[in-house]
Amino acid sequence: MDKQNKNGTLVSFRPGIKVVDCTMRDGGLVNNFGFSDEFVKALYQANIKAGVDYMEFGYKASREIFDESEFGKWKFSKEEDLRAIVGDNDSNLKISVMADAGRTNYREDIIPKSESVIDMIRVATYIHQIPTAIHMIEDAKEKGYEVTVNVMAASKIPDESLFDGLWLLAKSNVDVIYLVDSFGSFYPEQISRLTAKYQELAEGKEIGFHGHNNQQLAFANTIEACRLGVNYLDASVSGMGRGSGNCHMEALLSFLRNPNYQLFPILKFVEDHMIKLRQEGWQWGYDIAYLLTGVLNNHPSSAIKFGKDKRVDYHRFYQELLEMD
Amino acid sequence: MDKQNKNGTLVSFRPGIKVVDCTMRDGGLVNNFGFSDEFVKALYQANIKAGVDYMEFGYKASREIFDESEFGKWKFSKEEDLRAIVGDNDSNLKISVMADAGRTNYREDIIPKSESVIDMIRVATYIHQIPTAIHMIEDAKEKGYEVTVNVMAASKIPDESLFDGLWLLAKSNVDVIYLVDSFGSFYPEQISRLTAKYQELAEGKEIGFHGHNNQQLAFANTIEACRLGVNYLDASVSGMGRGSGNCHMEALLSFLRNPNYQLFPILKFVEDHMIKLRQEGWQWGYDIAYLLTGVLNNHPSSAIKFGKDKRVDYHRFYQELLEMD
Repeated sequence: MDKQNKNGTLVSFRPGIKVVDCTMRDGGLVNNFGFSDEFVKALYQANIKAGVDYMEFGYKASREIFDESEFGKWKFSKEEDLRAIVGDNDSNLKISVMADAGRTNYREDIIPKSESVIDMIRVATYIHQIPTAIHMIEDAKEKGYEVTVNVMAASKIPDESLFDGLWLLAKSNVDVIYLVDSFGSFYPEQISRLTAKYQELAEGKEIGFHGHNNQQLAFANTIEACRLGVNYLDASVSGMGRGSGNCHMEALLSFLRNPNYQLFPILKFVEDHMIKLRQEGWQWGYDIAYLLTGVLNNHPSSAIKFGKDKRVDYHRFYQELLEMD
Repeated sequence: MDKQNKNGTLVSFRPGIKVVDCTMRDGGLVNNFGFSDEFVKALYQANIKAGVDYMEFGYKASREIFDESEFGKWKFSKEEDLRAIVGDNDSNLKISVMADAGRTNYREDIIPKSESVIDMIRVATYIHQIPTAIHMIEDAKEKGYEVTVNVMAASKIPDESLFDGLWLLAKSNVDVIYLVDSFGSFYPEQISRLTAKYQELAEGKEIGFHGHNNQQLAFANTIEACRLGVNYLDASVSGMGRGSGNCHMEALLSFLRNPNYQLFPILKFVEDHMIKLRQEGWQWGYDIAYLLTGVLNNHPSSAIKFGKDKRVDYHRFYQELLEMD
């Protein structure tokens, strides 16, 4: 009973939970970060009204590696672009950006927190980049930010390496370590096992979860992690995110019982802005092609291409995937 | 370890599992049972090739209550119509039909098993009809059928009544008792609690699970039930079923490790037949409107109407639902 109370029940709530909106960051991978200012301002206001804790605006990608003319501005999330939307962000909504290990000019592009409206830097790393990620973490901590680390593609990492990586990150100053289901291949019972491992190895750190909806399990995996004590929960409006997308914000806010969370502003935002994005032809969300890459624990790129090519020959696609293995 | 082995793991499989295709029965509620013979024959062949255990063709609805001219033939699933598709059903695929308590002329319309190609009668009952359901169960057992009972809308039944009903059913000759999430309102942790209760109260019976996808949890709830020992698992191709639909057959077969199950024939069937149904305008599957009725544990009828009226004002719909309460 103690544990159940600590973790909240289906009637009560756990105050430590933080909801992170990643519509623009993961969704930016769908539309190449081409969100209109009107969209971004409306999402910012909707998140404030909904009581969402963090809004991730995009990436802090290196302008030495990526050509600015080829992407919308939220690939780079410059300070002046952020301020054009949020001013000094006089609200309870915190602002985060993602910084990819090896693809961020972090020493220069991440300025001291005292000069920035950004509250949280989310370092994204593959397992072979952990030492780089730790440099980035310590750099951002010294500059005054909250810092999380997303260990990507966890479903592809052998236990020994994963646990070694978690042990290194646990010794760093990072605030939150994320379990990330990049390929949408985890089942809830695997989330359960890994959550316990993350909690054990990173004792004293908060744990987060970021899911993908390949098998229609992003929400299920998120609430499974939540039930076990994971406090940082990623979601995006209407699940907008690469490929099959993410946990739907509408579902997550419906599930959480904290009275600070309000579903209405998100529903209104969907009506006013998300439906239009769909009509413009941007595609994301569950499809059999994503199910198949998820089941096979593959990167979704081939399924994204399948969709863009307007193919529906699922059985041939499945054959192709099996032959790739 | 013993329990884990008994229940199968993510690598092994549990031989007792039975997959029940309810595409035509629950999906018939979408298109008024108007499936073409070509569709039905192709689904029958696909299910045989896929190793699916049971195919539910439709209802055995009373022709005294329902006017035959108003429905497709699978509302009534007459013996001659079944035989026109399956002949003597010379296959390993078993055939089932659903019989609603209070809406089936079961004494006459369910003929002796020796004269029928039907293998299994699925009695569907609300909690207030349990004595009627038990009469139907005993009638069908005496006639020689396998018999299951679906206790519908379990999420609306107080524990005391539900457990009383299960106790009565446990004393009957029914083979399988189904936990049914009619409104798509259950979370996996509730499935876990109820599965244990069904198993305890109906010791010696098989347990089944039938989910709805209002909260994108039909597959998650199905594999949660499966993990805990539930052997009869309902799914439909592309989730076709009333409102938000059911557990997707594609996802379920991908998950199960029994080599007798084949995904390819189902993928081929989707390409050749399901896409066409969508193009004809039939609607089912996840939508925010279904999420909202699911969260509120309401019948999906208002969300179905919302979709048919081509409404997208989700926040007003949510207000309407809250005012209905």
